[in-house]
Amino acid sequence: MPEIERKFLVRDLPEELRNHPADHIRQGYLSLEPVEVRIRSRAGRPHELTVKSGDGMTRSEVNVPLTCEQFDELWPLVGRSIEKERTVLQQGEWTVEVDLYAGKLDGLVVAEVEFGTEAEAHGFRPPAWFGVEVTSDPRFRNAALALAEAPPQITLPA
Amino acid sequence: MPEIERKFLVRDLPEELRNHPADHIRQGYLSLEPVEVRIRSRAGRPHELTVKSGDGMTRSEVNVPLTCEQFDELWPLVGRSIEKERTVLQQGEWTVEVDLYAGKLDGLVVAEVEFGTEAEAHGFRPPAWFGVEVTSDPRFRNAALALAEAPPQITLPA
Repeated sequence: MPEIERKFLVRDLPEELRNHPADHIRQGYLSLEPVEVRIRSRAGRPHELTVKSGDGMTRSEVNVPLTCEQFDELWPLVGRSIEKERTVLQQGEWTVEVDLYAGKLDGLVVAEVEFGTEAEAHGFRPPAWFGVEVTSDPRFRNAALALAEAPPQITLPA
Repeated sequence: MPEIERKFLVRDLPEELRNHPADHIRQGYLSLEPVEVRIRSRAGRPHELTVKSGDGMTRSEVNVPLTCEQFDELWPLVGRSIEKERTVLQQGEWTVEVDLYAGKLDGLVVAEVEFGTEAEAHGFRPPAWFGVEVTSDPRFRNAALALAEAPPQITLPA
């Protein structure tokens, strides 16, 4: 299924974030190129294997549920992994996923919004607490973050 | 689960092969390195996604069943693929899978035998119709065959 989403750095964490529970997500990569193949565990949800291809705002994504046994057998085969805390917030009509990365990516906070159509995606007006958009910045793809040694730096034009 | 198997070229196709039905297998690779991630369709069986790692006789393998929809969504993401006709023969106490490759690998015939333990694998005596063993020849891994333009050539010592 094509996935249409926009991704932003978070400038100020909104107050209401504290009132929402966060899910611990652990995801590891079996392949980074030419397609991403990742497995993910997330508290309270089935483990899953996801295949993603494409770039930028619209990407192709296929999800396959995994049993715990399959996940545990696959995890040792993972080359790179990331961990993050995800909080889901409602922002007007939009659902925003806020990811606080952990470990070597500590300090990185990213907000993602998923859309039904590209027209909806283009019509989205980010709230004040969103920062720079990184949708088309390949350094902020999760597969790239898995390879990074620290959060990527953004230099704004003067 | 670890998979212990030995792989041989086939010198003479056994007569009895004609009396057994062959399954058409189509498999494509989402990733070749560092781990293989492949999807496979085989007549009469569920589609599946398989992750393999390791080399030689003992490899780690995890299988995940796919729905037809998942398979059809994943197939366009596949970089390389192979097709073959598989016949399963009983050879004494051993089950032998004979694969006749098609397309650019036409002419290549490989027999594989799977074992429960490495001791069993070492104790196996190949029947007369088996040819050169290629278990540890990386050119005969399916992922390598998917990249090949023709069947790999074997040069025997004089």
